[in-house]
Amino acid sequence: MIRVGTGFDVHAYDPAAPLRLAGLDWPGEPGLAGHSDGDAVCHAVVDALLAAAGLGDIGGLVGVDREDTAGAPSTGFVRAALRKLAADGWAPVNVSVQIVGERPKFSPRRAEAQAVMSELVGAPVSLAATTSDGLGFTGRGEGIAAIATALIERP
Amino acid sequence: MIRVGTGFDVHAYDPAAPLRLAGLDWPGEPGLAGHSDGDAVCHAVVDALLAAAGLGDIGGLVGVDREDTAGAPSTGFVRAALRKLAADGWAPVNVSVQIVGERPKFSPRRAEAQAVMSELVGAPVSLAATTSDGLGFTGRGEGIAAIATALIERP
Amino acid sequence: MIRVGTGFDVHAYDPAAPLRLAGLDWPGEPGLAGHSDGDAVCHAVVDALLAAAGLGDIGGLVGVDREDTAGAPSTGFVRAALRKLAADGWAPVNVSVQIVGERPKFSPRRAEAQAVMSELVGAPVSLAATTSDGLGFTGRGEGIAAIATALIERP
Repeated sequence: MIRVGTGFDVHAYDPAAPLRLAGLDWPGEPGLAGHSDGDAVCHAVVDALLAAAGLGDIGGLVGVDREDTAGAPSTGFVRAALRKLAADGWAPVNVSVQIVGERPKFSPRRAEAQAVMSELVGAPVSLAATTSDGLGFTGRGEGIAAIATALIERP
Repeated sequence: MIRVGTGFDVHAYDPAAPLRLAGLDWPGEPGLAGHSDGDAVCHAVVDALLAAAGLGDIGGLVGVDREDTAGAPSTGFVRAALRKLAADGWAPVNVSVQIVGERPKFSPRRAEAQAVMSELVGAPVSLAATTSDGLGFTGRGEGIAAIATALIERP
Repeated sequence: MIRVGTGFDVHAYDPAAPLRLAGLDWPGEPGLAGHSDGDAVCHAVVDALLAAAGLGDIGGLVGVDREDTAGAPSTGFVRAALRKLAADGWAPVNVSVQIVGERPKFSPRRAEAQAVMSELVGAPVSLAATTSDGLGFTGRGEGIAAIATALIERP
């Protein structure tokens, strides 16, 4: 039994915040605004996994009015989503994430980020980054978007 | 035999119109412009299902110059797409839709919308909603976007 | 063994360039800017295929500082991606691409484009086109976006 899920997330840059993206710290790069650490890649992965399993969305795990998730590392939300999947008999097959944005320059740390995210998810996670050719909010450098697709199975 | 399909749709708000989204009526919420009822979720689902099966897109079912589809409920387009799939031996496995927009606040009616869409499609439909953090046309409250991914099989 | 991958690409219009899209020439239509021929459909397909297989992204095949890929036909990048997949034991199952933009009017040549892309990929490629209802950079006619989802298998 196999299912597919889609997730999408956007965060505006907050230059005063430290950047957390794809489970990594990016010293010297503009951060992302958000209730948690703003890691748009983790958030899109959570939504894709939960959607594939029909188990809700990230809103069920994180609350902007919840003290316990304020500033929380988003890798914890990925773990929480995986626990919900496992409890329902699902395991991830693979996840693919496309990041759209001007910053950070992703390719020098792509292999490292993929290793961290694949370890976290317990299945292959592919990360790719592109710009939007100067167009739209990502092209104007206002924020980052992440599109994730997940395949899961019930063995 | 299994196939994947992607659909994407955008509709601008039309505050004078009643809102139809994900097969539900949303009294008091700004509506969506469009030749039909503007239900961006149904439209993205139709495109994802037809694309997975290689059976064209919603343009083959709806025509802006066709009287019979003017103001028509988009749930009918989903049914028409499913008939095309069935005639070619395909059945949906599951569909995942990510809605991006400021309005309506989706989570209070997510379970209800999922039940209606899953019943309509005859397979699990996951619906998730997010904002684009104030960025882009969805962030400025100009319209709604919906991204759908469908998995289908030929038993 | 089956995997899913997602790709996304944006190119701004360059009215002085000839348009190449989905492997076709479009005489009389505004072209797309880019280091290569700017074929956003091919680029999204490449990223979706490589992501599914965990084999990097288009940045590993094309370099804006590489003379050999300047102005190159993007169909060649699709072939290069397929060679990487084949070398690793993967074959495409199907690919679905959603194009978002005002120009060109795609439906009159959709069947032709699908035939060319399916022949190129060696598996069914579905192409659908939509507008963003006048909203955002695609709605303002500044550029084209393409979202691709690929399913691959290791037989």
